[in-house]
Amino acid sequence: MKVNVGIFGATGMVGRELIKVLFERKFPIEKLRLYASERSVGKMLETPTGKITVENANTADFSELDIAFFAIGGGWPETNASKAVEAGCFVIDNSSTFRYDDRVPLVISEINPNAIGDSKLIANPNCSTAIAAIPLWQIYKNFGLKKVIISTYQATSGAGNGGMQELQEETRKVLDGEAAGCKIFAHPVAFNVIPHIDAFQENLYTREEMKVVWETRKIFGDQNIPISCTCVRIPTMRAHSESIVVETEKEIKPEEIRKIFEKTDGIVVKDDIENNIYPMPLTSSTKYDVEVGRIRQNLIFGEHGLEFFVCGDQILKGAALNAVQIGELVLKKF
Amino acid sequence: MKVNVGIFGATGMVGRELIKVLFERKFPIEKLRLYASERSVGKMLETPTGKITVENANTADFSELDIAFFAIGGGWPETNASKAVEAGCFVIDNSSTFRYDDRVPLVISEINPNAIGDSKLIANPNCSTAIAAIPLWQIYKNFGLKKVIISTYQATSGAGNGGMQELQEETRKVLDGEAAGCKIFAHPVAFNVIPHIDAFQENLYTREEMKVVWETRKIFGDQNIPISCTCVRIPTMRAHSESIVVETEKEIKPEEIRKIFEKTDGIVVKDDIENNIYPMPLTSSTKYDVEVGRIRQNLIFGEHGLEFFVCGDQILKGAALNAVQIGELVLKKF
Repeated sequence: MKVNVGIFGATGMVGRELIKVLFERKFPIEKLRLYASERSVGKMLETPTGKITVENANTADFSELDIAFFAIGGGWPETNASKAVEAGCFVIDNSSTFRYDDRVPLVISEINPNAIGDSKLIANPNCSTAIAAIPLWQIYKNFGLKKVIISTYQATSGAGNGGMQELQEETRKVLDGEAAGCKIFAHPVAFNVIPHIDAFQENLYTREEMKVVWETRKIFGDQNIPISCTCVRIPTMRAHSESIVVETEKEIKPEEIRKIFEKTDGIVVKDDIENNIYPMPLTSSTKYDVEVGRIRQNLIFGEHGLEFFVCGDQILKGAALNAVQIGELVLKKF
Repeated sequence: MKVNVGIFGATGMVGRELIKVLFERKFPIEKLRLYASERSVGKMLETPTGKITVENANTADFSELDIAFFAIGGGWPETNASKAVEAGCFVIDNSSTFRYDDRVPLVISEINPNAIGDSKLIANPNCSTAIAAIPLWQIYKNFGLKKVIISTYQATSGAGNGGMQELQEETRKVLDGEAAGCKIFAHPVAFNVIPHIDAFQENLYTREEMKVVWETRKIFGDQNIPISCTCVRIPTMRAHSESIVVETEKEIKPEEIRKIFEKTDGIVVKDDIENNIYPMPLTSSTKYDVEVGRIRQNLIFGEHGLEFFVCGDQILKGAALNAVQIGELVLKKF
């Protein structure tokens, strides 16, 4: 059985990666159609099965599609998701529009595939959430989670192609002794650290920080997990890192959880300190699996605590790959 | 009263900054002498009072000096500190050689100036410790500390001039499409994150991580403070950032501690999120004060918890400035 697939926002960073991942994973595509905003209409995009002309996302006929991947921000998903669903099309939305809507499942295939149920609209989680959730779920299931404290090291790809381009251009300027500027980020990002991603909330946390809290709880189906997060932009390209400390309900041993991680889909354990092997953007970029390492007993919570470091490709597990994995779950509905 | 001052390791990154800071702070110098390893002997270094010829550190006559700043690593301080002290010279050592020796005071002037006592040898703390300790001390004194969890974002200056140079050279290579290498760091640092600074210990923490634990406890004079730390190298030049979560004994309000920080020597509060003002390497580099911001109630510990972000110049408060401040305390002994 093959399906008609549409990618909305096909010219963007996540859109382009969606095309790649769909083909890499041999998604059973009958016909692939690409959509974007008006200014990209008519553009030709390379795909493994030849060039495809970009169509206007605003005038798409969703009844011609079986599965639509939404990778457009702003108000667009709000307006178009219900149209698509009413036309009988499954929608996998990469934006945060529906993530906190109780009626819309928020899915990571390794964790809560059954949450999809009968919904034709499925939300894809935030990048930092998706990357941390895979190891956290194993701890939650096997040892219980009493506390989760996260500090992130987020790549510029989180702000799209423009973010990565800004990092490169501004870095070159700084190296050439020129003043660094900024358009996409609130401050120059080259050789800098910006503890600010997305808008500040009333509780003084950023929305990016609260996304990790809200989404992890929703995906795990447990509103009571205490989580706190600091989200920080750093001058890297496309893989996010996270320093994670947990307190567990049951006693937890590093060797024990390491063995569990080694058997977990979506995780590759990089934890051989004698050979300087640990998670890094350098090794996790462009990879599907989330790297987990620096696994050790936390010094505060003792045998009920663990400290570890994760690294995952923001565009893949943090966006396009997880969306395609949701698509693979949706295929079973046909 | 003026004193004869010697800087050992004068040609290095910290040595050069020591010269600058001594003059900026109008240290009462009778005569300044500069020492380094044999290969730098005879070199002329610029100082605000003219050029000074570098002498051989290994053949220094410490009886000609009142205060010696040691900024040389390896086994050098071990061999030379007692010689200097026996010759009647005060030694302020920037290495980790004596920091964990109970007989040697480890001092941050804003926290434990009286720890110097009668010792003629005083140790200067690790950079990450010094930067975090200033705000942590205010919390400890006013609210008590039940738990401290730190994740660092450390600049390449922590590995000296060579570290900063490697970042610049390798960054340029990556931008030009060439393969990045590494000499000083365990992996290429350009556009990368390396969760590994200093040697791994038996408990799977790095020595850099344990330094923060050991030194904070020693400086605060309380071996019972539960602290855990993850130390991470990132591609920035000379200011370290740290994401810090604390649980306090007494209730703590962000507004309350913000007011205390505002009155604390060595801290500048950068916490005006409406105007995108928070601590950053961009603004804290080359500054004496440690920037503190993103101050908010921690979501897990509630009214007994705080989360904040600090940023401080690794070469200044993390090394040269703190050493000179110790020197200013030592002056009172003459």
